[in-house]
Amino acid sequence: MPEPIVDFRVGLTDPASFPVEELALAAAEAVSSVADDFVFYPGPLGHAGLRQVLAARESKREGIEVDPDHLALTNGSMQAVALVAQALMQAPGDVIITEELTYSGTINAYKELGARLVGIPVDEDGMRVDVLAEKLEQLAKQGTPPRFIYTLPTYQNPTGAIMPVERRHALLRIARQFDILIVEDNCYGDVHFEGEVPPSLYALAEKGAVVYICSLSKIFAAGLRMGYLLAQPEQLERITAKRLDLGNSVLAASICAAFLEKRLWEHVERHNAALDEKRRALLSSLDEHLADLCHWTAPRGGLFLWLQLPSDIDLDLLDELSAERGVGYAPGSAFHIEGDRVPAIRLAFGYPAAAEIRRGVGILTGCIRDACATTLRQASL
Amino acid sequence: MPEPIVDFRVGLTDPASFPVEELALAAAEAVSSVADDFVFYPGPLGHAGLRQVLAARESKREGIEVDPDHLALTNGSMQAVALVAQALMQAPGDVIITEELTYSGTINAYKELGARLVGIPVDEDGMRVDVLAEKLEQLAKQGTPPRFIYTLPTYQNPTGAIMPVERRHALLRIARQFDILIVEDNCYGDVHFEGEVPPSLYALAEKGAVVYICSLSKIFAAGLRMGYLLAQPEQLERITAKRLDLGNSVLAASICAAFLEKRLWEHVERHNAALDEKRRALLSSLDEHLADLCHWTAPRGGLFLWLQLPSDIDLDLLDELSAERGVGYAPGSAFHIEGDRVPAIRLAFGYPAAAEIRRGVGILTGCIRDACATTLRQASL
Repeated sequence: MPEPIVDFRVGLTDPASFPVEELALAAAEAVSSVADDFVFYPGPLGHAGLRQVLAARESKREGIEVDPDHLALTNGSMQAVALVAQALMQAPGDVIITEELTYSGTINAYKELGARLVGIPVDEDGMRVDVLAEKLEQLAKQGTPPRFIYTLPTYQNPTGAIMPVERRHALLRIARQFDILIVEDNCYGDVHFEGEVPPSLYALAEKGAVVYICSLSKIFAAGLRMGYLLAQPEQLERITAKRLDLGNSVLAASICAAFLEKRLWEHVERHNAALDEKRRALLSSLDEHLADLCHWTAPRGGLFLWLQLPSDIDLDLLDELSAERGVGYAPGSAFHIEGDRVPAIRLAFGYPAAAEIRRGVGILTGCIRDACATTLRQASL
Repeated sequence: MPEPIVDFRVGLTDPASFPVEELALAAAEAVSSVADDFVFYPGPLGHAGLRQVLAARESKREGIEVDPDHLALTNGSMQAVALVAQALMQAPGDVIITEELTYSGTINAYKELGARLVGIPVDEDGMRVDVLAEKLEQLAKQGTPPRFIYTLPTYQNPTGAIMPVERRHALLRIARQFDILIVEDNCYGDVHFEGEVPPSLYALAEKGAVVYICSLSKIFAAGLRMGYLLAQPEQLERITAKRLDLGNSVLAASICAAFLEKRLWEHVERHNAALDEKRRALLSSLDEHLADLCHWTAPRGGLFLWLQLPSDIDLDLLDELSAERGVGYAPGSAFHIEGDRVPAIRLAFGYPAAAEIRRGVGILTGCIRDACATTLRQASL
């Protein structure tokens, strides 16, 4: 199958905002500054300079104090996502709670590690904590309490849902009641377009109740493979003990630090403005073409729009037509913990230019209408 | 405990040979050249430019053709060491064969993954293949064949042994006979001082019989966290499927590529010359101080000297005195798969300067003599 012409598949950042020249300068500066200390292993936490910058990032956004020594660098947030499960699971078959629709990478990793995923439905306010409470009760009775709750409370992937602060408090209360650790993935936290951003669970929680995961992949670039964990020292020690690769690249980390030290927020602002233009192009094209047929909520942050399709659409045909006509998206089933073929697709709008996005929605519209028409024809036979 | 004043503990490269200025230039060059392609994920194999450089490295040393698409970048060779076991083990308790004395990082990783290590004794020519054959026979009879044989045939860590070409052929023959995959760790392959270097097992083997692991940590710097795997595509796919971190940093890899593309062998030559000076300082100091009491073989390559101590030495006392007096080494027990307190220590000579090495051997001599004298006194009581 050829590569799609318009590619909404992967959550990438905006290439035009990538600061090539500034990063080249930062790279030379970082190498000169670390100098022959590159011969040392990075240790379990990784480059101190980048940990300081990232602790300051969290402090500024969340308005809390963050100790750089409570922060460990990981190879992308995915390594953090996996390490947490490796540290907290005791045996294959152990239960992990996630949103029923969640990040495909997390689903793959936790299944690869042998976890049994128990999904909690998601509404426009994120994980349904009423259902969570029932499920925790039920799992406790069965003697299979979850090892932890993995959640994406802000700009949930794939749905874009944002959990309001009241529900965050409720989630923390329930987790405390059942003595279950929360793993909060806030990798989209700074990809913000409009409205209020509630505080992270980590900021609201008691010490040790939440292990926090974040990344540079959604504000900077995925090819850097730079993510991090924030947790209490004893938790961090237990989690980083599971990494078998002897630590995070000091070369990559020191360069990120040299660039971000002065330019983090300026870069985030520029990048968000570029993404917002793309988001608007996507929303106006969808309004123009698909308002009568599909449903979506305008994302207030993050890199994705979750496009809900008519429930009787022929999803196989949609996949086929889209591949033929050159438009790529991530199928809804990739984000369902059981792989259910939910009638929805995820559109990542960070990579394609605004004009491409409009063109892509045009092509996609034809595919969706054709995949619905066939269903209608089949139904009328 | 304070840091030792003279530190022989960790296998680091020579800091004075680290090419700070040239790497700073390469860093700026690489960032400008990759430019906005940093927004992409690295894919399972990693940055193509570095894979080409490393394939050329292997081709040149081994005199064989190496396809860059048979090579996958890993976060240090330790990630490769771990991924191989994750891909090949089927259940906890699975047997892996290693040299009885082998790299402590490998021992830790394989035990962490639940493997049962079966050790084969090492002599001056490396793994005893006669014992290996017996052991494989025995394991086959017990219905517990090993998942693979992990070996360090060149400049074995910690012993420094080099397996001659005849024994390499014998090892390959035995592995083929029992249909067992060999995992060859050649991370010291280019750290060469004198004598012939036999071809790698990978170069001598039939296609698919050996999975090969190498690194930049022993010729360049451990803080880069850059290693790699060489294997047949279907093996590579199976192994890289176990990495849950979405790939190797393009930032770190592209910079290594930009530097090494033109300067790999020039750098290796300069680095080996610097290490050789340190090795000579170590050997002459040992000759001067410990010839009557200890036994060692001059390493022909690698970063370590394996110092065999009198068998009646008080190892606890030696550890205590060395810590007090400020000389660090790696205890022999760290390299024994059962943690046996073998009367030997490993001296890593890459980091300290020649003068420090001489000073360190002086201090160490006192510690060893005192730890032996106490044993003698105790024996005479």
